[in-house]
Amino acid sequence: MFETAELGQKVSKKDFDKREEELRLSLLMAQQRLRKAPFPVIVVFAGVDGAGKGTTVNLLNEWMDPRWVVTRYMGEPTPEEKERPPYWRYWRDQPPKGLIGFFLSSWYSKPLIDRAYGKSKVNELESDLEDIVNFEKTLSDDGALILKFWMHLGKKAQKKRLSKLEKDPLESWRVTERDWKHYRMYDNFVDAAERIIMRTSTGAAPWHLVEGVDHEYRSLRVGEILLEALEERLGAHERREKFLKESPPSEPPSSHLTTSVGKSATTVLDAVDLSQTIEHGVYKLRLKEQRARLNELHREARDKKVGVVLAFEGWDAGGKGGAIRRLTSALDARSVRVIPIAAPTDEERAQHYLWRFWRHMGRVGRVVIFDRSWYGRVLVERVENFARREEWGRAYAEINHFEKQLVDHGIVVCKFWVHIDQDEQARRFEERAKIPYKSWKLTDEDWRNRERWDDYVLSVHDMVERTSTQIAPWTIVPGNDKKFARIKVIETVCDNLEAALKKKRK
Amino acid sequence: MFETAELGQKVSKKDFDKREEELRLSLLMAQQRLRKAPFPVIVVFAGVDGAGKGTTVNLLNEWMDPRWVVTRYMGEPTPEEKERPPYWRYWRDQPPKGLIGFFLSSWYSKPLIDRAYGKSKVNELESDLEDIVNFEKTLSDDGALILKFWMHLGKKAQKKRLSKLEKDPLESWRVTERDWKHYRMYDNFVDAAERIIMRTSTGAAPWHLVEGVDHEYRSLRVGEILLEALEERLGAHERREKFLKESPPSEPPSSHLTTSVGKSATTVLDAVDLSQTIEHGVYKLRLKEQRARLNELHREARDKKVGVVLAFEGWDAGGKGGAIRRLTSALDARSVRVIPIAAPTDEERAQHYLWRFWRHMGRVGRVVIFDRSWYGRVLVERVENFARREEWGRAYAEINHFEKQLVDHGIVVCKFWVHIDQDEQARRFEERAKIPYKSWKLTDEDWRNRERWDDYVLSVHDMVERTSTQIAPWTIVPGNDKKFARIKVIETVCDNLEAALKKKRK
Repeated sequence: MFETAELGQKVSKKDFDKREEELRLSLLMAQQRLRKAPFPVIVVFAGVDGAGKGTTVNLLNEWMDPRWVVTRYMGEPTPEEKERPPYWRYWRDQPPKGLIGFFLSSWYSKPLIDRAYGKSKVNELESDLEDIVNFEKTLSDDGALILKFWMHLGKKAQKKRLSKLEKDPLESWRVTERDWKHYRMYDNFVDAAERIIMRTSTGAAPWHLVEGVDHEYRSLRVGEILLEALEERLGAHERREKFLKESPPSEPPSSHLTTSVGKSATTVLDAVDLSQTIEHGVYKLRLKEQRARLNELHREARDKKVGVVLAFEGWDAGGKGGAIRRLTSALDARSVRVIPIAAPTDEERAQHYLWRFWRHMGRVGRVVIFDRSWYGRVLVERVENFARREEWGRAYAEINHFEKQLVDHGIVVCKFWVHIDQDEQARRFEERAKIPYKSWKLTDEDWRNRERWDDYVLSVHDMVERTSTQIAPWTIVPGNDKKFARIKVIETVCDNLEAALKKKRK
Repeated sequence: MFETAELGQKVSKKDFDKREEELRLSLLMAQQRLRKAPFPVIVVFAGVDGAGKGTTVNLLNEWMDPRWVVTRYMGEPTPEEKERPPYWRYWRDQPPKGLIGFFLSSWYSKPLIDRAYGKSKVNELESDLEDIVNFEKTLSDDGALILKFWMHLGKKAQKKRLSKLEKDPLESWRVTERDWKHYRMYDNFVDAAERIIMRTSTGAAPWHLVEGVDHEYRSLRVGEILLEALEERLGAHERREKFLKESPPSEPPSSHLTTSVGKSATTVLDAVDLSQTIEHGVYKLRLKEQRARLNELHREARDKKVGVVLAFEGWDAGGKGGAIRRLTSALDARSVRVIPIAAPTDEERAQHYLWRFWRHMGRVGRVVIFDRSWYGRVLVERVENFARREEWGRAYAEINHFEKQLVDHGIVVCKFWVHIDQDEQARRFEERAKIPYKSWKLTDEDWRNRERWDDYVLSVHDMVERTSTQIAPWTIVPGNDKKFARIKVIETVCDNLEAALKKKRK
């Protein structure tokens, strides 16, 4: 694989100066166009030590407008990063739309090093690479332009480079013991790299091998590949924009509600028994019992570093808020955070839709409760056509992968749809309208959402079908009786947490 | 002091129901008005264990619209928090404008507990309280409405409360060993609390003592105090807005450039010798030497957990970017971050102006370089009238206090004004206009800023006079010769870092 990057490519200083000036200008112009484009550019650097990764990124920073570039180097995870699922920090550091992110070391570093050092087995490497492909696909599906550079040196060239640097007393600090260690492990690194590049060089996120011996050659090569990719993508984007402007789609987006269930078939919500109630005295006692139980489980979970993530969805006036408050009052306020999901901020809008949920993931052993969640993508965004068909269509798989990462990190994930019927909702809306301190809760949007009731029913059905997994199941909570719903929620959290702790106790 | 909160205040259930309904509605209405107001509300809870802090906050959350409320409980600092100056997390968790933040435990917890346990001496407590007063003043000067509640129980009442909870098997989890320990230390806590409340009850951030025995009484009391403060402040704000709308100030803001230096006096910039240059060969060698020196110092600093924060200011085209790149190329990319300061995002605009700089403070031993900085407040914001006179006027002290906190945390703070004269700037602008890949750097704003040259000179003079402290000095870098400037910057960073490390070595 690497033969093509050991050919001794060179560019003369004179040639370099000429091509550099042109490249610089073109990159700057592309950057200006990118700022208005609705996607980020992700550039990953990996490769043999001494092949000029750092120097190249420094040069790119010099060529381009540094205000619209972010450079990240991820070393060993910090304590704070270790407490979250591994991809938490990669999500956090993604460049927003319109910007370019250079990653000097990235999600590739650990799989590469672990494999080269023999710390991971082949099948572990494969599973790591699976995660990478998934991650990059999620980003590129959302529009991100991803480029990956393997900066290469042959074994002899690496030795020559390290020795030369070491001999110069003012440059020798650039060479560390680790560099020599890796040089001695050269073959291991190259074997691992070959497997990694083969598996992760996808159409949407290709690898480019660049020979790193000659400073002029490698700099121009990286810059020109980057420029070409940028111009191609920007051109495609701008042509599409122009086309849409000149010939707007004549029909409104249709069939966004094509669903897996037939028109008059029974949906998962139709099957809910909403007549279930609980008597007031029993409720009082059960609530007290379950609170005590939850508190005990919660403290054990914190000690054992088992986190909890809860997502609440449901009809307007369904009683999500009341159920959440019954939970939080049983928990240690230091370890719980409720995240109400409102309109995204501009920092959030500039990122993939999952980014704003990733950012709230707490430390190990903590409880994070989302009042509305990432399921908005396949509920309101689908019903209201805020997301395109292909966007919400792929969201199910993205969400499953997202939740799997939480579960793999030892987090218990529970999802609740708090269900009421239309009559009960009407009754509650009227009550809200009447009681002054409740009327603020009732908005025009609530009435509008009510008109889309049937669309929501179908969307909920699909959502449950596609995302109720064994590791992160949905619970549909009969909510016509608020008290019944509250007990059901708190019991379900307790049951799931207990089951997870039981496994840990073994 | 606490006698007034041990009187056995009570409210009957019937009275409570009536007043609650009215209070709820009023709070919600105030919240709606607050959402449009340009300030946040900060509510701090402290007090005797068992006096109902948590219950009260839960109830307030139930009464109000939870989307516009944030509740924070700060326990022991996490590893990530410990690596930053103590107030980093308090800044981070401030509610944005238009929202209410409830703090269950806050910046008061550590001083109170340390003093009650006898871990801190009286003079240490005083210094902690000084920091608190400073912090709250900074926020309230910017408009924040701050309320602080001390929820009180007499010693007997506390014992009664803990015993009662403990007897109920379903409530006993609420009582911990720590609660009893604190009960036995009751007198210590109350002594420390008295001193804290006396010292920190300022006009802008007063304490309210609330008797916590009776659930109904304390809930109404807290709610009513909060409501009254909210309505008063909102009323004042709205009246002011109305007044300004009806009678806009007839004259443009004047005298914003009244400065401490006379009209024709010599400013600190006039005194700079801009004729200094360095010969190319010498430059090459010195740069290599200083880079090696910086790299070595940087590695020692990282080991010794000494951080570095650099702020770069200077004329457009002065050469800040080039100087910064010469620094970063000598540093380990993992430990350095360059923060270009552009327009604030909406999350940043919703906070105090210092918030957006606090958020970038790195872990111990790291280097953070700001390309433009918090000094924008007293430079561009002053010159362009973006900040009111009293805003930039108080910023000098705020900035000094901010930098002091960094230095106290073991961070080396250096500030650079990269200086050129008007002729040199004109020459560079023309060069930029001619060279295609440089022309992007030149904007209309650059020409506009140039017209305000004299205003900037005076602002720089004041800035240096008021913020060049021994712990965080300004360096004015003669920049007509770019190479000379680069060497000056890297040498200054090295010298300052070396001096700090020398102290550590002792």
